[in-house]
Amino acid sequence: MRYLITISYDGTDFFGYQKQPRKRTVQGELEKALKEISGGKTISVHASGRTDAGVHALAQKVHFDLETKITCEKLAKGLNSLLPKDIFVRKVEEVSDDFHARFSALGKEYIYKLNMGEYNPLERNYVYQYNSRLDVVEMERALKYFEGTHNFKSFTKADDEKEDYVRTISQTNLIRDSKDLNKITFVFVGTGFMRYMVRNMVGTLIMVGEGKIKSEEIIDILKKETRIAAGKTASAEGLYLKNVFY
Amino acid sequence: MRYLITISYDGTDFFGYQKQPRKRTVQGELEKALKEISGGKTISVHASGRTDAGVHALAQKVHFDLETKITCEKLAKGLNSLLPKDIFVRKVEEVSDDFHARFSALGKEYIYKLNMGEYNPLERNYVYQYNSRLDVVEMERALKYFEGTHNFKSFTKADDEKEDYVRTISQTNLIRDSKDLNKITFVFVGTGFMRYMVRNMVGTLIMVGEGKIKSEEIIDILKKETRIAAGKTASAEGLYLKNVFY
Repeated sequence: MRYLITISYDGTDFFGYQKQPRKRTVQGELEKALKEISGGKTISVHASGRTDAGVHALAQKVHFDLETKITCEKLAKGLNSLLPKDIFVRKVEEVSDDFHARFSALGKEYIYKLNMGEYNPLERNYVYQYNSRLDVVEMERALKYFEGTHNFKSFTKADDEKEDYVRTISQTNLIRDSKDLNKITFVFVGTGFMRYMVRNMVGTLIMVGEGKIKSEEIIDILKKETRIAAGKTASAEGLYLKNVFY
Repeated sequence: MRYLITISYDGTDFFGYQKQPRKRTVQGELEKALKEISGGKTISVHASGRTDAGVHALAQKVHFDLETKITCEKLAKGLNSLLPKDIFVRKVEEVSDDFHARFSALGKEYIYKLNMGEYNPLERNYVYQYNSRLDVVEMERALKYFEGTHNFKSFTKADDEKEDYVRTISQTNLIRDSKDLNKITFVFVGTGFMRYMVRNMVGTLIMVGEGKIKSEEIIDILKKETRIAAGKTASAEGLYLKNVFY
């Protein structure tokens, strides 16, 4: 039986999603819990994609196969009782054998949270703290240039050698918290995101907000197809994998 | 010169506010930072009151004396550069020599956050997770019985021997998050709060929400003046010292 689980996690204390020897990872914790459930058998899990250290997930999707059938409710309860407090199984579904959490995914939604207001120690791991004002209107304008189908080579990890850097961003949004205008959330919905892509787009949007570059320069940066054209990688704590679409 | 500082902190990784040998405390961290600022002199700090392990503060007030005058802005910057990331100095003020953060306080505001909805691992240290529905209307009714001047012996630490258990709660409030009705915040404004008093009131409100006792039974519990009459102590992570009034 193939199962698809929807999980949320606090990325703060993980060395990212992907399993690594002697490091605390989300995948590592999931496989440890599943080993207990399956009576000592090693179960490999497959996520919709990795998230880096410090990056959070509100709805990461992961599939795996179990030899013995178990109800979705029982599996959810069992996993949640075995998993650490910073991972939570929100939902368990039975899926067909040809379903794959990564290859069947049609798109993803990421959000990035930024605070231009006073530092709040309670949010230090959940929001990127930017200690001065940014031009929000210009950032919103810049954000819209990412929409559409583009070669995103300028916004990937510098040493990433991929065959294809073309991705489609179907929707973006800049949301300002109505109760606290200093809190901004960037929303990105797209067919696929390469490593550091969202954080590099946000780092570039911050340069726009600082007035270092103009919003329309996003077009040139995309065209240059080289990492050095874009801004810094924004830090991990502001980034959330919000949803995966199938 | 006497200084009053307003600080926020994330209580998660502290053994409470008050200094204890070989334990990480808010007071300990403040005094460590002040020792550096004063060139090695030991500076004692005085807070409006303690907060227990895991309890947060949005605006705790602390005063201390420094021999050499330093501008408020410099002192704030200096402290924030020396303090760990889970404490933040929001404001520094010069106050007169007879001001005392604890004895000059006229009142305090505490809030308590509770979630009846799905567990969110990102909020596990900041909201009390209650895994089923509570009768919110009945809890709100019960909350109002705490308003006024009462003997709160039933709501203090069982072994607390005080001379006077009478306190005044001038205002209470139950706020339901309009975006997520499962999130509830209890607000308590009063002249003074004894140890565990807010958490014991919340624990008793939860019993009301569960239907175990009726809202008007709060009156009887107050009258009984014994700890065993009230409900359990609600856990620390939902509690915030929100403000101190002078």
